Amino acid sequence: VKVINDLLGFTNLKIVQDTEYFNFSLDSVLLPNFVTLNKSIKKILDIGTGNIPIPLILTTKTKAQIVGVEIQKEIYDLAYETLKINKLEKQISIINADINEIAKTWETETFDVITCNPPFFTYKETSNINKNVQKTIARHEINLTLDNIFSISKKLLKNNGVIAIVHRPERLVDIISKMRQNNIEPKKVQFIYPKTRKEAHILLIEGRKNGRPGLKILPPIYVHDENGNYVEEIKALFEK
Amino acid sequence: VKVINDLLGFTNLKIVQDTEYFNFSLDSVLLPNFVTLNKSIKKILDIGTGNIPIPLILTTKTKAQIVGVEIQKEIYDLAYETLKINKLEKQISIINADINEIAKTWETETFDVITCNPPFFTYKETSNINKNVQKTIARHEINLTLDNIFSISKKLLKNNGVIAIVHRPERLVDIISKMRQNNIEPKKVQFIYPKTRKEAHILLIEGRKNGRPGLKILPPIYVHDENGNYVEEIKALFEK
Repeated sequence: VKVINDLLGFTNLKIVQDTEYFNFSLDSVLLPNFVTLNKSIKKILDIGTGNIPIPLILTTKTKAQIVGVEIQKEIYDLAYETLKINKLEKQISIINADINEIAKTWETETFDVITCNPPFFTYKETSNINKNVQKTIARHEINLTLDNIFSISKKLLKNNGVIAIVHRPERLVDIISKMRQNNIEPKKVQFIYPKTRKEAHILLIEGRKNGRPGLKILPPIYVHDENGNYVEEIKALFEK
Repeated sequence: VKVINDLLGFTNLKIVQDTEYFNFSLDSVLLPNFVTLNKSIKKILDIGTGNIPIPLILTTKTKAQIVGVEIQKEIYDLAYETLKINKLEKQISIINADINEIAKTWETETFDVITCNPPFFTYKETSNINKNVQKTIARHEINLTLDNIFSISKKLLKNNGVIAIVHRPERLVDIISKMRQNNIEPKKVQFIYPKTRKEAHILLIEGRKNGRPGLKILPPIYVHDENGNYVEEIKALFEK
């Protein structure tokens, strides 16, 4: 079922969703608020852009050109409608392609910033994969592994460009290892906790191509307070 | 100047310190509260034990035998006095030796748990090193690098044994890399923040020899509240 919603809290931004597919989540709102942006940034790539929640929020923060790549035709179609409704075709381009293939055809050192809210689950034959093929691709590392993300970033990022991803904390060790294998130095990490006294459930991490060692752990973010309400910091993300 | 103090909050434990040397800190109290202990543990090694703050606190939590190794004779002498005053010679043994040398002479797979509050600063010719040689060795990676710690752990830990260290968050990436190089899988991390809205300043990390991938990020700990007082969680560490 196709629906048009406000992008959480952004009353000027609409997002076209299909309730049968994987829909955008808190992760997609956290990432564009986390990634390092500055005025000299010219070009941003969003890998696995879905129905473009990350590019939409980025347009509220930067004038840079944003390219979103989405492998699934059905999801790309939603992104295309979302783009039209928001009249953002000048700032955002979307491409229906496999990033692994299209990246081969692009020039090296093209982007200042890459963002990615990748599939979280390692694909195994035995995985309890979703019968809905769109959800399966969106949620499992079938088309897009950590190796893919960081080797693509190594090629496409300018020197000192940054790649920021949102992931699950249990993969931190793998992410750090794969980043370093691709000359991307982890520089900034933030953990999101469902509430106080709980383990982190979301990881935000940014690495810099050819960056110098030295990691910052940003202040923790809690999603809910003791009463189960969103904390002010999370509400603020949704009130732009 | 030599002084005998209560070990912070532990009214039954005394610690002998010399104000000219590097003295124990919050780090040494956090680590024995963080490390995973269970009843089957027989033998613990504390590397760079100083005036044995970590072994002292461990005695309040486990019946295991604890071996502390300290390279510096002057610090070892303080540890020896501390041991006598607390009458803990049966549970704690201390050795005045370079862990890198003595580890070569020991059997493999000897310890269930290793703890270490290592020197934090990379030693460079240009480092602003402390003129006091005892403080310099205690604070810089001269005698004990991350490579040393984890290759020693690889040898001396039993299969599935754990190594827990306290360090600075900016070294997380190096620590994770060196752990994995030595078949030690990071399993548990906790960040300590000076107060809310500040970056983390202390890292606690535990790895398991031949462990399976999968990291937990424990709830954050703040040291001070908005008014600059210790938070309840930190006070509790000091009120045993």
